[in-house]
Amino acid sequence: MTLRLRAPALAAPFNVVLVEPEIPQNTGNIGRLCAATQSKLHLVGRLGFRVDEHAVRRAGLDYWHLVDMQQHASLDHFAASCRPPRTLYFSGKTSRSYLDAGFRPGDALVFGKESTGLDASVIERAAGEVFAIPTLYRPDAPDEKIAAVRSLNLGNAVAIVLYEALRQVGALDAVSLGE
Amino acid sequence: MTLRLRAPALAAPFNVVLVEPEIPQNTGNIGRLCAATQSKLHLVGRLGFRVDEHAVRRAGLDYWHLVDMQQHASLDHFAASCRPPRTLYFSGKTSRSYLDAGFRPGDALVFGKESTGLDASVIERAAGEVFAIPTLYRPDAPDEKIAAVRSLNLGNAVAIVLYEALRQVGALDAVSLGE
Repeated sequence: MTLRLRAPALAAPFNVVLVEPEIPQNTGNIGRLCAATQSKLHLVGRLGFRVDEHAVRRAGLDYWHLVDMQQHASLDHFAASCRPPRTLYFSGKTSRSYLDAGFRPGDALVFGKESTGLDASVIERAAGEVFAIPTLYRPDAPDEKIAAVRSLNLGNAVAIVLYEALRQVGALDAVSLGE
Repeated sequence: MTLRLRAPALAAPFNVVLVEPEIPQNTGNIGRLCAATQSKLHLVGRLGFRVDEHAVRRAGLDYWHLVDMQQHASLDHFAASCRPPRTLYFSGKTSRSYLDAGFRPGDALVFGKESTGLDASVIERAAGEVFAIPTLYRPDAPDEKIAAVRSLNLGNAVAIVLYEALRQVGALDAVSLGE
């Protein structure tokens, strides 16, 4: 039996919301992340892949049955069904950093599709609750700046935001080695 | 032109070190993460895939040429070549949280392979500089606790650690919208 560093789950778990995700491996990794943090996963709208057992097993996601996952036809359906206390949106195209989001347990954390992110109409309705993960550039290398990678893999973005949220609410404070 | 949230790079970038990575898509996502944060990527030992241009292009990693990447035969070769001021190791099997790592610019951040993590011999030589990302369990659900997912995807683990490191050293403080 290998012991691992563990912390007790939040009473009100975070809700990770993916709008029209396109790449099954990303959703698979995010499902694993949600299962490992006792977070809920919500898939909204039309998916670019099948989430039935056979399809995800073929992708090697043998922990998929441990994911607390729900599907919703739209963000409105998600809001009506889940009724999160607050909904935060993540997009590269905003001046507010995710570090300043002031996360609270139970928050819904909404991410857009891999190719184009959240629709402009969603961001407009978000009433300012839109946050970005900064990327870094070299001020002394303007060409490199223009050519540089400016967005992260969707799974990585969710991981960065979710663990910052867990840190901010103190969910990672009471750790111990356990099974 | 879409503006995105950006911050200037560190003078001494972090060094992300992957020991014998097995899954090309993980290394690809980590390369994207390194390019987006102006971090250096080091691949150590025998790889489970080819990193030549043709192979990575087939995997859809069309930003690979933007990754500052080096290969090393062993961790000793990496240390002799890169001479990082400090080397931190990441493993699920330790009682110290990554939040307490006290990151400093230029640190080397070492991660093991997907299947088994870092070798016990590496952890023994690490002289206590080994840190874990906690996962969460439900204290009221012992069966679920035993069955739960206890490790993260390698790319997600690197993303969580690297962005916490960038946060701790203040690299995400001076943000602005830019190209």
